[in-house]
Amino acid sequence: MPRVEHDPIGEREVPEQVYYGIQTLRALENFPITGYRPHPELVRALVMVKKAAAMANVEVGLLDEKRARAIIRAADEVLAGALADQFVVDVIQGGAGTSLNMNVNEVLANRAIELLGGRKGDYRVVSPNNHVNMSQSTNDVFPTAIRLACLKLAHRLLEELRFLEEQLLKKAGEFDDVIKVGRTHLQDAVPIRLGQEFGAYARAVKRDMVRVRSAMEALYDVNLGATAVGTGLNAKKEYIQLALNHLREISGFPVKGVEHLVDGTQNTDVLAAFSGSLRVLALTLSKMANDIRLMSSGPRAGLNEINLPPMQPGSSIMPGKVNPVIPEVLNQVAFQVLGNDQTIALAVEAGQLELNVMEPVIAFNLLQSLDILRNAIHVFRTRCLAGITANREYCRKAVERSVGVITALSPVIGYEEASKLAHEVLDTGKTVKELLGEKGLLTPVEVEALLDPRALTEPGIPSSRLHEDFTLFHRPGKGGFNGLTGRMP
Amino acid sequence: MPRVEHDPIGEREVPEQVYYGIQTLRALENFPITGYRPHPELVRALVMVKKAAAMANVEVGLLDEKRARAIIRAADEVLAGALADQFVVDVIQGGAGTSLNMNVNEVLANRAIELLGGRKGDYRVVSPNNHVNMSQSTNDVFPTAIRLACLKLAHRLLEELRFLEEQLLKKAGEFDDVIKVGRTHLQDAVPIRLGQEFGAYARAVKRDMVRVRSAMEALYDVNLGATAVGTGLNAKKEYIQLALNHLREISGFPVKGVEHLVDGTQNTDVLAAFSGSLRVLALTLSKMANDIRLMSSGPRAGLNEINLPPMQPGSSIMPGKVNPVIPEVLNQVAFQVLGNDQTIALAVEAGQLELNVMEPVIAFNLLQSLDILRNAIHVFRTRCLAGITANREYCRKAVERSVGVITALSPVIGYEEASKLAHEVLDTGKTVKELLGEKGLLTPVEVEALLDPRALTEPGIPSSRLHEDFTLFHRPGKGGFNGLTGRMP
Amino acid sequence: MPRVEHDPIGEREVPEQVYYGIQTLRALENFPITGYRPHPELVRALVMVKKAAAMANVEVGLLDEKRARAIIRAADEVLAGALADQFVVDVIQGGAGTSLNMNVNEVLANRAIELLGGRKGDYRVVSPNNHVNMSQSTNDVFPTAIRLACLKLAHRLLEELRFLEEQLLKKAGEFDDVIKVGRTHLQDAVPIRLGQEFGAYARAVKRDMVRVRSAMEALYDVNLGATAVGTGLNAKKEYIQLALNHLREISGFPVKGVEHLVDGTQNTDVLAAFSGSLRVLALTLSKMANDIRLMSSGPRAGLNEINLPPMQPGSSIMPGKVNPVIPEVLNQVAFQVLGNDQTIALAVEAGQLELNVMEPVIAFNLLQSLDILRNAIHVFRTRCLAGITANREYCRKAVERSVGVITALSPVIGYEEASKLAHEVLDTGKTVKELLGEKGLLTPVEVEALLDPRALTEPGIPSSRLHEDFTLFHRPGKGGFNGLTGRMP
Amino acid sequence: MPRVEHDPIGEREVPEQVYYGIQTLRALENFPITGYRPHPELVRALVMVKKAAAMANVEVGLLDEKRARAIIRAADEVLAGALADQFVVDVIQGGAGTSLNMNVNEVLANRAIELLGGRKGDYRVVSPNNHVNMSQSTNDVFPTAIRLACLKLAHRLLEELRFLEEQLLKKAGEFDDVIKVGRTHLQDAVPIRLGQEFGAYARAVKRDMVRVRSAMEALYDVNLGATAVGTGLNAKKEYIQLALNHLREISGFPVKGVEHLVDGTQNTDVLAAFSGSLRVLALTLSKMANDIRLMSSGPRAGLNEINLPPMQPGSSIMPGKVNPVIPEVLNQVAFQVLGNDQTIALAVEAGQLELNVMEPVIAFNLLQSLDILRNAIHVFRTRCLAGITANREYCRKAVERSVGVITALSPVIGYEEASKLAHEVLDTGKTVKELLGEKGLLTPVEVEALLDPRALTEPGIPSSRLHEDFTLFHRPGKGGFNGLTGRMP
Repeated sequence: MPRVEHDPIGEREVPEQVYYGIQTLRALENFPITGYRPHPELVRALVMVKKAAAMANVEVGLLDEKRARAIIRAADEVLAGALADQFVVDVIQGGAGTSLNMNVNEVLANRAIELLGGRKGDYRVVSPNNHVNMSQSTNDVFPTAIRLACLKLAHRLLEELRFLEEQLLKKAGEFDDVIKVGRTHLQDAVPIRLGQEFGAYARAVKRDMVRVRSAMEALYDVNLGATAVGTGLNAKKEYIQLALNHLREISGFPVKGVEHLVDGTQNTDVLAAFSGSLRVLALTLSKMANDIRLMSSGPRAGLNEINLPPMQPGSSIMPGKVNPVIPEVLNQVAFQVLGNDQTIALAVEAGQLELNVMEPVIAFNLLQSLDILRNAIHVFRTRCLAGITANREYCRKAVERSVGVITALSPVIGYEEASKLAHEVLDTGKTVKELLGEKGLLTPVEVEALLDPRALTEPGIPSSRLHEDFTLFHRPGKGGFNGLTGRMP
Repeated sequence: MPRVEHDPIGEREVPEQVYYGIQTLRALENFPITGYRPHPELVRALVMVKKAAAMANVEVGLLDEKRARAIIRAADEVLAGALADQFVVDVIQGGAGTSLNMNVNEVLANRAIELLGGRKGDYRVVSPNNHVNMSQSTNDVFPTAIRLACLKLAHRLLEELRFLEEQLLKKAGEFDDVIKVGRTHLQDAVPIRLGQEFGAYARAVKRDMVRVRSAMEALYDVNLGATAVGTGLNAKKEYIQLALNHLREISGFPVKGVEHLVDGTQNTDVLAAFSGSLRVLALTLSKMANDIRLMSSGPRAGLNEINLPPMQPGSSIMPGKVNPVIPEVLNQVAFQVLGNDQTIALAVEAGQLELNVMEPVIAFNLLQSLDILRNAIHVFRTRCLAGITANREYCRKAVERSVGVITALSPVIGYEEASKLAHEVLDTGKTVKELLGEKGLLTPVEVEALLDPRALTEPGIPSSRLHEDFTLFHRPGKGGFNGLTGRMP
Repeated sequence: MPRVEHDPIGEREVPEQVYYGIQTLRALENFPITGYRPHPELVRALVMVKKAAAMANVEVGLLDEKRARAIIRAADEVLAGALADQFVVDVIQGGAGTSLNMNVNEVLANRAIELLGGRKGDYRVVSPNNHVNMSQSTNDVFPTAIRLACLKLAHRLLEELRFLEEQLLKKAGEFDDVIKVGRTHLQDAVPIRLGQEFGAYARAVKRDMVRVRSAMEALYDVNLGATAVGTGLNAKKEYIQLALNHLREISGFPVKGVEHLVDGTQNTDVLAAFSGSLRVLALTLSKMANDIRLMSSGPRAGLNEINLPPMQPGSSIMPGKVNPVIPEVLNQVAFQVLGNDQTIALAVEAGQLELNVMEPVIAFNLLQSLDILRNAIHVFRTRCLAGITANREYCRKAVERSVGVITALSPVIGYEEASKLAHEVLDTGKTVKELLGEKGLLTPVEVEALLDPRALTEPGIPSSRLHEDFTLFHRPGKGGFNGLTGRMP
Repeated sequence: MPRVEHDPIGEREVPEQVYYGIQTLRALENFPITGYRPHPELVRALVMVKKAAAMANVEVGLLDEKRARAIIRAADEVLAGALADQFVVDVIQGGAGTSLNMNVNEVLANRAIELLGGRKGDYRVVSPNNHVNMSQSTNDVFPTAIRLACLKLAHRLLEELRFLEEQLLKKAGEFDDVIKVGRTHLQDAVPIRLGQEFGAYARAVKRDMVRVRSAMEALYDVNLGATAVGTGLNAKKEYIQLALNHLREISGFPVKGVEHLVDGTQNTDVLAAFSGSLRVLALTLSKMANDIRLMSSGPRAGLNEINLPPMQPGSSIMPGKVNPVIPEVLNQVAFQVLGNDQTIALAVEAGQLELNVMEPVIAFNLLQSLDILRNAIHVFRTRCLAGITANREYCRKAVERSVGVITALSPVIGYEEASKLAHEVLDTGKTVKELLGEKGLLTPVEVEALLDPRALTEPGIPSSRLHEDFTLFHRPGKGGFNGLTGRMP
């Protein structure tokens, strides 16, 4: 038989077995929007706040020990995994998180009531508002919990990023001797080493880690104690300090109070900035995924420089086809994160006066971005990156056929003459070496010295690696190309 | 005991009870990204395509009747709600939807095998690729299914929009006599009727319906039969026409083949355009929600023009507070849709050559947008809009106190003199009527005629409603304000 | 010597020679933001409105003929190109366009004063507010002018789009016999014709034209006569109709009054929707530009399917390099338009109550998008697309080397066996034809029939083109691959 | 008479008087897109790079002193303001900035030729490619210059932000005693001080400064010496170090070489991150502008808490109206920056392999964002913020009328009873004090102590400020509201 609960709006029947109460019930009716339940880490964070508050409230003499102990034990049970199915309000909800806060308040209150031998719904024993929510407002509790949940997931993401950077560096080493055609504008340019490219990805990822960490810094500042509008009304100063101390210990994160409680309550710029750091990470990942899909294009009518480990049949119709499904998922996750960040930016801009009521949609998108980035990076690293192999020989041959190496001649014969040579190479279909040889412009030894592919992938002017006279002869003002055409000494 | 299945990549154990097979299993391993399962309407749409294809394949002599009947019966079961838990691949997946297509192929194949008395996994009986997917490619099946699912949800959304427009018009009628201060730049301007404002919302919603419908038009064109790259290889021409005929009947939507199959396969602009129509709808809704939150601000230190029905206690700390939680949810859904559209735009731009491999993330976001818009509009209409009441008296008094009505004098006394009067009103704290009366500028009758609030909310020049001499006297060039200060005849 | 002007805020010296007045001066001081002056077409549109209003005002007896004639003549002069340097307020301005409206009012007033023999600044002769702005508000004049300017530029854009579609179709014809490797997921797939790809681009562009035109429809509805908040206060009904009639004639566009003036004044959804149509166009163009850059990649280590006409040396350092600079500009313009659309969406959402005060930034971005799209498409069409050539032979050879053609065997031997063959082809480095020949699976005649490249680019099952016995033999259920390996009859 | 120049593409006539050459001319023909010329700071930065390169080239023995001196002098002239009208290529250009680089190369070469007594166009004297561009590629020069230009403008922006923070803090002090109704969800909540709100804005701005500065850090790392693909081909190691040394001195910025040249050339994540910091700043500013427009709404039918200094007549039709035009410009600039950031994100994602060819559109948007933010903040600070005044008395009265103060009773009487009281207050139209007094619940002294507005804006439980017995009596578990209704001892 359902119990009857009431709130300032009226009465409702609540199913007997559930631990949430009338306000959660109203939220279920008011917000049947996405069908997604709150993120478990957000619920956990809220419960940690409740526990810390209860401990502080009893210490400042506002909450009696019996109730406090029951609330704390209920919280511990939830933190250990109990009642996970009782947190049911939709991720998109009006009220700036009040419904999720009340969902947590009601579940903890009812469980505490049970622990004290009462019947669920008898809020005289333990009240969701007066006891569980004591000294708190959704407006300080919810922003605090968002930060805790973000920190938790961000640390996990950073761990994945560290592994990703490591794996990229490993590949950079593995591919350090794979010389391939570098490309700018998708056009053949001068040679580069595949390892240099993977090294570049590693550096970008490293910068992303720095940026994510830097944006996380601001999340350690929480507005617990700000209560309704940031003034701290109904929260004793001693309570605030004690609650923060407890929260640090419970969460394991070195959270501290914001410098300015009103600021900490009304402004959500730190969440936009944090999401912004994920956005740049998404751009990095998408660019890398694009490159990897390009380099593995083929196998016969593409660039064909690298091979991705086949993870599943590529096509329901084309036999033998294997597609870069893992990089594709990285791209799509990047797009999702960019879209989520867009939602977050809109929501952040919509804050008004003392509060940003759009925090639920911010939390939903931010936590989702953190989750899917971590998941996609993990999958990418373990199911794609680690197994990438290079087509060394194919890459080497492409360099030999390529025209860009003529750039090495430019300091010797000038840009214009080099351009003419380049066009001659293209028109004749020969290789640069062949043409230079045929023209008798350089001895085979000189050609090798000048066009040594590995040397072309490092800073320096290749011609200066030739014999002393050569470089002397081609000093600026001493004749340039004419000297070259006249046969080098 | 699990069964063993194999695919071109290798072998895997598949749990005995499941209807999906090895390729779905690989997808589960490859894509543990969001944890969200495919949208039921997308699954249904795919199953409809499979059924239509099987019917056509048998008709063109490619598929034997026994297998066809089994596939069709399996499809019908799923369409009736069976095996709903067997469609399990993540909404974000690489492979352009191949995994979801194969998930559907495998479930239907295994159910068909069962129906034919075989054992799940014995694909000689019915093969996911050769029979269920016959004449098809993910690249025509998946885009077709996305369109069908969108159409289904779009029609539901349009129904909600019709109800919304209706309710707005009803309110426009109800509030037609509520005269209030109009505001531009959030500053008091000339009077307006609350009903005019709600009428304006209704018109915007109506335009949104037109736009959504217009964008839907293009979704009726499907690329079924395009197969792998849009050339239709392995799909007989007769098959294509027959399959489309069946699909029309099965789905109830008048779908037809695209004019150019290659175009229909590689381009996803119609999805971007369709999402774009939802994006503008989101902007309309967010603007309206913002206005309603503004107008209901207060109750004592805000505009206080309207009251929203209280849906839940507004605050966990502030007693008696009621917040506009439903419009807030509308705002947040609008932001989510705008973010989703951003993801979709990025994904659409990322199409390359013959295919857009980002279609899964497009489908996920598009279907979510359709769902949450419908849900939020329904909640807004039934739990907020319908119950809005106006504070008639409060609005009327505000008009009397306001200065903007002086605009009505402008055609008589000129912009500059009217400005001076306006400043005098503000400086003295009087009302416009009081000041005009005190100055003896107008008789009480004239004041009433000139500043009749209702008349001020319609086109026309109020002074021309005064007696003949008045308007004559103030004809342009005949003296303007001087005449007025000298007392009007 | 500067003249002294005053407004309700105070006095200012205005340089003698300028035609604008004190309010423009204030705007220059208040809005030194971008340094960009108003779009000439927006100014022209405002001047057309002023002319139409003056004509209507005199007809309804509010404006004397002398002043009206002077205002109209001043307007005609500006429309003919005069005083173009007098419209100086920044494109980003507060006040919802009031400053630009007043800039126009002041310039026309001062020129009209001159024409009447007065001295600039003597607004008793012709007043910017009382006479030039008579019966108008920025809030109806500015939205009307934005629409007119958009229509003008949109028509020019549509003309370019028509040419683009034409040129794409021409190329589709020219390349209809160029058979190349189709690619999905950037991986080699089944053959396609280059002409089919260009035909697909043409279709997408055609849809964009439909969408742009459809979004333009709503721009013909203008809120002229709405005045301050959309109620039409101070605008006679007859004036509204007359002014619209004149505006139609002056502008050449069949504009008409909006159905609901309050709606037409407060809502800017039609501008968001119009920009949204440009956004989808941008996506189409960017995808096409990406493809063209991909297909022209190389020349030796890329896809090398097409050649773009060289427009400028590609590199300041690499001799002989030619880059796809024109498609690159198309990409960048697409990104700019997508960014502009983002700004517009934010601005549209920010409308409040009776007005959207963000209209200036909407106008700036919308008109810029229209301009740069037209410019970039023109450049793309004339300097890139028209000159694209195909590497027929290279494309043909790639098809021969490719593995995807094996798909044609799938209906005969089944997906799984075909997969095995595909892997064998890849592992041995042979071509499909070679392998099939060596294995004695098909006679040379059969191979040619089955793998005729052109036939593979059309709907149909290639094996059904073989002799009767073949197809009979391979009917479903009759043995499939076993039959094939056993040599076909 | 025009001179004739040639490049690898062909010949062109170049007007005699211009200092740019054939490649600039081609760019003008190829890129007639926006009509905007390159940002002066970007040109300056490029010229600084050219100067530094020339100095280094002569030191490593690649460039003769005569030419070097001429190039350096030409550069110095341009840095001093000369030839500003010769940098003419469009801001949106293909070629990854090659055209702007060549524009600068050509102007400096031709000016250097003149200085050496030659005729413009005689590139044997000084060659744009061989001498001015020596050891460089667009691909290292352009990214380096973008960073230098950003740094210059970012420092100016930071200076404005410092002033803004200062002014906000000043206002926070000035308004520290203005007690007003705090609002959450736009609904009346508990009191807050206007100074607390401005203090909150100041803190957010301070965080933005930290974020902008943090994102700037990465801009000091430049890829000068990376040349074409980041390998440094044709740039001697010693040259790189020397050129950086010179660039540091010339620019005044402590730039240093990137750790990994290939990374520094292909990745543009640091530009996305830098733009991202401006994006969050834009969100902060827009939220603040929204609040200020809200708080200054009225004057009679709005919140009317603050007054903005009138900067211009607000309306072309409504006399006496003054609008918040300056905050409106701040909103619009924020939207523009958010749109620009969107363009930048798209462009950053579009980088491929060794280069991001979309850098021109990135530079355009980034530099514009920096400019318009600085301009808008300056205008906002000096023309709006500094002159804001508070309506102290009006705010105070609103607090007295408000219901939210009842929250102070909640710890005493419990949330539910307090809710009932709140509703009674609202229903009767009385003030909280009146009702409490009438009910005899509290003595006047107690009411004053409990509801002292200033005290309500600080952390703490007001009831604990009452006499000892009171707090004792209301300890948890000792009776709560019953005690209160029974009259407090």
